[in-house]
Amino acid sequence: MNYQKVINEIYQTIHNQENIGQVASYIPELSKVDPSNFGVCLRTIKNEEFGAGDWQTKFSIQSISKVLSLSLAYKILGDSIWKRVGVEPSGNPFNSLIQLETDNGIPRNPLINAGAMVICDILISHTENATNDFLQFVRKICSNNNINYSESIAQSEKATGYRNIALCNFIKSFGNIENDPATVLDFYFHMCSIEMSCQDLTKTFMFLMDNNFRTPENERVLNTSQAKRINAIMETCGFYDESGEFAFKVGLPGKSGVGGGILALHPNEYCIAIWSPKLNKKGNSSRGMKFLESFTTKTNSSIF
Amino acid sequence: MNYQKVINEIYQTIHNQENIGQVASYIPELSKVDPSNFGVCLRTIKNEEFGAGDWQTKFSIQSISKVLSLSLAYKILGDSIWKRVGVEPSGNPFNSLIQLETDNGIPRNPLINAGAMVICDILISHTENATNDFLQFVRKICSNNNINYSESIAQSEKATGYRNIALCNFIKSFGNIENDPATVLDFYFHMCSIEMSCQDLTKTFMFLMDNNFRTPENERVLNTSQAKRINAIMETCGFYDESGEFAFKVGLPGKSGVGGGILALHPNEYCIAIWSPKLNKKGNSSRGMKFLESFTTKTNSSIF
Amino acid sequence: MNYQKVINEIYQTIHNQENIGQVASYIPELSKVDPSNFGVCLRTIKNEEFGAGDWQTKFSIQSISKVLSLSLAYKILGDSIWKRVGVEPSGNPFNSLIQLETDNGIPRNPLINAGAMVICDILISHTENATNDFLQFVRKICSNNNINYSESIAQSEKATGYRNIALCNFIKSFGNIENDPATVLDFYFHMCSIEMSCQDLTKTFMFLMDNNFRTPENERVLNTSQAKRINAIMETCGFYDESGEFAFKVGLPGKSGVGGGILALHPNEYCIAIWSPKLNKKGNSSRGMKFLESFTTKTNSSIF
Amino acid sequence: MNYQKVINEIYQTIHNQENIGQVASYIPELSKVDPSNFGVCLRTIKNEEFGAGDWQTKFSIQSISKVLSLSLAYKILGDSIWKRVGVEPSGNPFNSLIQLETDNGIPRNPLINAGAMVICDILISHTENATNDFLQFVRKICSNNNINYSESIAQSEKATGYRNIALCNFIKSFGNIENDPATVLDFYFHMCSIEMSCQDLTKTFMFLMDNNFRTPENERVLNTSQAKRINAIMETCGFYDESGEFAFKVGLPGKSGVGGGILALHPNEYCIAIWSPKLNKKGNSSRGMKFLESFTTKTNSSIF
Repeated sequence: MNYQKVINEIYQTIHNQENIGQVASYIPELSKVDPSNFGVCLRTIKNEEFGAGDWQTKFSIQSISKVLSLSLAYKILGDSIWKRVGVEPSGNPFNSLIQLETDNGIPRNPLINAGAMVICDILISHTENATNDFLQFVRKICSNNNINYSESIAQSEKATGYRNIALCNFIKSFGNIENDPATVLDFYFHMCSIEMSCQDLTKTFMFLMDNNFRTPENERVLNTSQAKRINAIMETCGFYDESGEFAFKVGLPGKSGVGGGILALHPNEYCIAIWSPKLNKKGNSSRGMKFLESFTTKTNSSIF
Repeated sequence: MNYQKVINEIYQTIHNQENIGQVASYIPELSKVDPSNFGVCLRTIKNEEFGAGDWQTKFSIQSISKVLSLSLAYKILGDSIWKRVGVEPSGNPFNSLIQLETDNGIPRNPLINAGAMVICDILISHTENATNDFLQFVRKICSNNNINYSESIAQSEKATGYRNIALCNFIKSFGNIENDPATVLDFYFHMCSIEMSCQDLTKTFMFLMDNNFRTPENERVLNTSQAKRINAIMETCGFYDESGEFAFKVGLPGKSGVGGGILALHPNEYCIAIWSPKLNKKGNSSRGMKFLESFTTKTNSSIF
Repeated sequence: MNYQKVINEIYQTIHNQENIGQVASYIPELSKVDPSNFGVCLRTIKNEEFGAGDWQTKFSIQSISKVLSLSLAYKILGDSIWKRVGVEPSGNPFNSLIQLETDNGIPRNPLINAGAMVICDILISHTENATNDFLQFVRKICSNNNINYSESIAQSEKATGYRNIALCNFIKSFGNIENDPATVLDFYFHMCSIEMSCQDLTKTFMFLMDNNFRTPENERVLNTSQAKRINAIMETCGFYDESGEFAFKVGLPGKSGVGGGILALHPNEYCIAIWSPKLNKKGNSSRGMKFLESFTTKTNSSIF
Repeated sequence: MNYQKVINEIYQTIHNQENIGQVASYIPELSKVDPSNFGVCLRTIKNEEFGAGDWQTKFSIQSISKVLSLSLAYKILGDSIWKRVGVEPSGNPFNSLIQLETDNGIPRNPLINAGAMVICDILISHTENATNDFLQFVRKICSNNNINYSESIAQSEKATGYRNIALCNFIKSFGNIENDPATVLDFYFHMCSIEMSCQDLTKTFMFLMDNNFRTPENERVLNTSQAKRINAIMETCGFYDESGEFAFKVGLPGKSGVGGGILALHPNEYCIAIWSPKLNKKGNSSRGMKFLESFTTKTNSSIF
């Protein structure tokens, strides 16, 4: 498979099409991004790397970070985390409060905002300093110490994220947040503000794609069963209420963020990251969705 | 891989455990089944066959048939069917009417009752005689002319299936059923009443597992992309509001029925069918779920 | 109070304004009505009668009939009916199925469709022939043997009332309908099809307004407490999800129908009926709502 | 009517019955109240006063205060307040977030928590110092300068009121709160913490009962139409999802609080206040509900 050629072709085709959709505006700082950014990076299990466009430019990965915090919590606490968060698709938008009311404060899955907040709460209770420890965890599996939070984006969301403040206090009212909501939200907003390039993302997600992945210190991040389970959750819940559509059209486990990034992977074959800031109505990168649909069709590489 | 050995071991282990759960009782005729039935059949892409227990006894496959009617509709009409039914997990029980009200009569996916009724309606509009044509379709891909509807089960559900009658009329009120609701329901109840053994099921589902599958007349059932998409829908929607749990624990596309059957498949590797009538709280076979979780763990064969 | 003068003034003012809104179209036969019809009748506790416009023309009273069937069931069974239907406003449109699912088949109140069907079911179980007995009951309290069902409207709704068919079967699926849904629906559609004029309505509802009301046979319809309770239900639930608005602006117990009729009453003072077929977005007569708001303001006669 | 005799009789009867229900515990400070407190006060339009039990003991009136803040906002801004809050019963528990999501942040009515917060926000925007001005308003219409907030209860709710913090931020996320949520909540918690006796309450609510009421400075609080409308809202929305039941059994406009108080009134006849801290499942005073049902039955004084 000549991955570089396929990537270049699809990139060029989509680049020539109108760049439709809307840049996320609910976090004011996010809306300042240049909407013409467009990058792709693919990394194979043999660590071959293929890039196109702005693949080395850092951007706000937003919800993609939820897979990483989930992985850290799963690593630390194992299956006990599933007492506090489910593994079912929600069938509702990412920031919905409706289901929490009927589900008594147990979020449907760890990739919607509510579930990610519970994971943040778990990490705060079980690490020395969650904000720092999480950043070190990401840096280590990516082998890149230049990964950082964006303080301006974290503060921008903190100042305007009323829906998320509501969510966190609502879960707290059901008793499923142990720490002070303000503390949980501070970590949550920082976690979402982490900045990485497409290249960084493909490096970082190797541990979920390659069953033999080890950190530079020769450490496994998750065991085989745990990694498979995270992939399963990405497959069924990674794209909010467009998760079924993504499985249907793309056929890979993945996760999107409102910064316009998408990370997807084919177990034991490759990781792929795309970035283009304009989002479709469901909050997923328009060009990213198109790219991946085209890519798995051309390479015939869906997991199904 | 010595499949027979693995199957026998798991079968024996589970057989020795208490047979928990409840036989489906909402269709009176279904509740007459012997709850101790327990069968397993696995068929590889090389058409090797492995069985255990009651693997050659026919039973009511119920909702598993929805994958087959969906496949027939997809074969006949192609992607135009997706205008009338979605591909998203519902996040709700299989017979819920709530989402239809907010979604204006477009069912979330074709594997919940509402969606399967829309597919039945499509088949009635686009075949000579849907009830007969569907049966012939199943017989052909299974190469088995002894597959039949159970008239007693179809009539039993027709006489007591008030929730399904409500569902069908409700969708009709939104204009997403073209034919008379009584006609649609009659076909729907027959479709669900079809009886097959675990052996039959593994033969029948070869067309979704083996990309090179042909019927005896050397006909493809679906093209590659279509088959992958049906598998994706099974992965995200095949187990009602336990779909995420199934992806998480088992990691295969599959479909369950309230008759106690489960069909799952690993693309290009194998189909597997289990039958045990006692259901868990979500309406899926208790022993079936346990068997598959154990099986994919032991054989390390999840798609993730 | 010169009621005739007040009525004439308001009638003239509204008559001169544009006739806005939409005639109900979901029952095809209902949509044939002339939208320019506009009638008013007021009857005092002293049985003085004041009319304007088309006040003696019969029309389809539709949901207004639900108060009468409720009264008959209350008369026959007393407070035991409240085991099967509540007395709370629903906060939802009149034909919503959502709450039934969360409330396990117990309709919120007897004036929404679901609740009225349960009342119909009760009457079928506790009368010789509900369709006939109900008509005789209405004729008797109105002292008018020319009141009849409209067979064409009943049949028109039966042929197209999929939402109501869904509702009835849905309640049946929870066990809160005893009889065959088709039987219940047949009575329900007939009940709604009853035709009366504004004059007839004010006569008929005297039993809820005048604590000393007796039928020609000198019979009480309901006792004081029962009549007050029916009035309370009309106040909180009589106008679907515009009930609060009606209490707020008009301040009288009342009931509307999609035929464009509204009946309201001031206990121990008067009954008033208005008919104008064009409905507002909530399904209540536009001119009727305006008339009553103006009337209670000018006569300063709200119950609050 | 010998009101004192009727009150004494009912008081004695209920006092002799078991004191069932639960004291509100979600505000820790509230749970410290002695559950045996039981007081009643009735005040006629002629300002005759009748009391029984602990009718002069102050208690936390909680949600009863929402009628007073609504009245102040209505007085200041007139009908423009209805752009930001509805007048419909909610059909849901008092602290539900579900409807806000479907209603885009417009609370159903001003007597549920969400609506009362919007009213608080309005008062903050349109008064010098809402917390102080509201207290002075209440003192003036009650002619009692000894009415005060309970700082300990306000702080107790602020420290634990996660659901209310969620509600306020949720409304803010829809743009229907102008001020900082923390500011709104601080006023809201103070408002709810106001302490009054049954005697105080009957004095305070005279302005809604007596159309000729004037403050000591000879000022009207609301005009006739406004007062009637507030009464209508109390009738349809004053008891959360037990509002229909209250209208049905008691038949008076009224408002309850989780401190165990209930205020009801019969326009142009009397105000009545009851206090007993143990609440039924819907959050309304058990003895208060019983007392009023018995009282309006014995005095035959429902508005219906």
